[in-house]
Amino acid sequence: LGRIGTVTVVGVGLIGGSIGLALRARSVATRVVGVGRREASLAEALRRGAIDVATTDLASGVSSAEVVVVCTAVTDIADCLLRAAAAAPPGVLITDAGSTKQTIVEAVESDERARAVFVAAHPIAGSERSGVEFADQGLFVGRACVLTPTEATPADRLERARAFWRALGCRLIEINPAEHDQALALTSHLPHAVAAALAATVPAELLDLAAGAYRDGTRVAGSDARLWAAIFRENRGPVLDALGRFENQLADFRAALESDDSEALRSWWLSARARRARFTAGPDAGSRDP
Amino acid sequence: LGRIGTVTVVGVGLIGGSIGLALRARSVATRVVGVGRREASLAEALRRGAIDVATTDLASGVSSAEVVVVCTAVTDIADCLLRAAAAAPPGVLITDAGSTKQTIVEAVESDERARAVFVAAHPIAGSERSGVEFADQGLFVGRACVLTPTEATPADRLERARAFWRALGCRLIEINPAEHDQALALTSHLPHAVAAALAATVPAELLDLAAGAYRDGTRVAGSDARLWAAIFRENRGPVLDALGRFENQLADFRAALESDDSEALRSWWLSARARRARFTAGPDAGSRDP
Repeated sequence: LGRIGTVTVVGVGLIGGSIGLALRARSVATRVVGVGRREASLAEALRRGAIDVATTDLASGVSSAEVVVVCTAVTDIADCLLRAAAAAPPGVLITDAGSTKQTIVEAVESDERARAVFVAAHPIAGSERSGVEFADQGLFVGRACVLTPTEATPADRLERARAFWRALGCRLIEINPAEHDQALALTSHLPHAVAAALAATVPAELLDLAAGAYRDGTRVAGSDARLWAAIFRENRGPVLDALGRFENQLADFRAALESDDSEALRSWWLSARARRARFTAGPDAGSRDP
Repeated sequence: LGRIGTVTVVGVGLIGGSIGLALRARSVATRVVGVGRREASLAEALRRGAIDVATTDLASGVSSAEVVVVCTAVTDIADCLLRAAAAAPPGVLITDAGSTKQTIVEAVESDERARAVFVAAHPIAGSERSGVEFADQGLFVGRACVLTPTEATPADRLERARAFWRALGCRLIEINPAEHDQALALTSHLPHAVAAALAATVPAELLDLAAGAYRDGTRVAGSDARLWAAIFRENRGPVLDALGRFENQLADFRAALESDDSEALRSWWLSARARRARFTAGPDAGSRDP
């Protein structure tokens, strides 16, 4: 990867801001343009050094971009991608950071101009915090980034997208959009829903008696409501399927406890524990412990 | 609280070991005796300085104790309490660190000698790790310790128990044994069951796509299986009730998602988020963030 000229980041929140910081810290691009809706966020992104130039106008923001990364809320991504493709130079690479992929890829592939320049991506990094004020130049280092190319994805853009996300420190995983959405429903969307359900289950007057298990089990319930309502709806089918699998696990636990079956409880727990141990030993282990 | 002579810790694992370390670091006691079943654990407790003297014989271990703290697995606590009461000097204070209280208190109160010296306690501190090798002298600092006195609890022993647990750094909460078990079913036992169910739901081949939400949501699934099977069984009714409340929350989420109701999803999320924010702002906030 030679150094890129201008990268335009559309949506300068936690993810977009972190991309800008990483691009500049690693000298991946000579210039980072930030496109946002709110002047205050853009001002904060400039102040933090996440972007060099700010604009609220998407078309002018992408007009000289070599790479455009769309990091808005999932429900806005497809629209921004099409508008960016219409306004950017023909040589542009457009990618995104959306938590779901199927509906985004479908929207892009029905648009000739966008399809010719787009590679769908999802860097699996984030936080329950939102906003550029929590952006972190190291957010992507060692984290998985899923690319979901299809038969319609141009080979040269795919190569450039791989180089771009690797330059931010990601390790790459390539699967198709439907596989991505089914996988993330289980690995991310379900854990978010479970955290929120758990948070809401404990009455406020008992929180004084809660400790580490509640704290960690509910951390991501602090995430943004609009963002997560949108992700759940975008990935409704796979999330409902993941929820069903989780309900089956709870039903197994309930059955073992109702029958006061010590061996069933232990073996249920041991298989969960073994799965958890496998995760801890995985490729992100450094960022996973304890 | 004057300095205590001998404190005997029965069960020298993570909790018992941490109590020993704290007693010695804070000069609360002049001597800490450790009673255990396994020579290897006792040797490690001696090596780490968690105890001064080790024995596998409970009766001789408590024979000159001013205070006995029973920190074994919940299913063994009642038996150890009765045996300690039979062998310790009549002036002894006996307390425990069990995660459930009702069955333990009932067992003790049916025994005249034990009832006269016992105050039930539950320091709400722990880890998914077990064993004296993970013991920590600061484990109890600022953490809640629940005492569950009843009408049968002697006033002088209650005073001494308060002073003892405060000397380890705990802040005290006093409720009755049934209230304790119902509360902890929600604040601790349910979060453990949920963590294990979540851990088991995500297929091993997808763990590479899991990140922070899965990591934190499943951390306590790494806890000991025997210990947790015992806690669930000891507190079966309240845990099943807590599970029912959690299942209701999941059902609300499922209904909102099935009907693709953006407003319902958002308001469901927002009430969970508000509850979580209340926890973060609570008395343990320092040990709770993020």
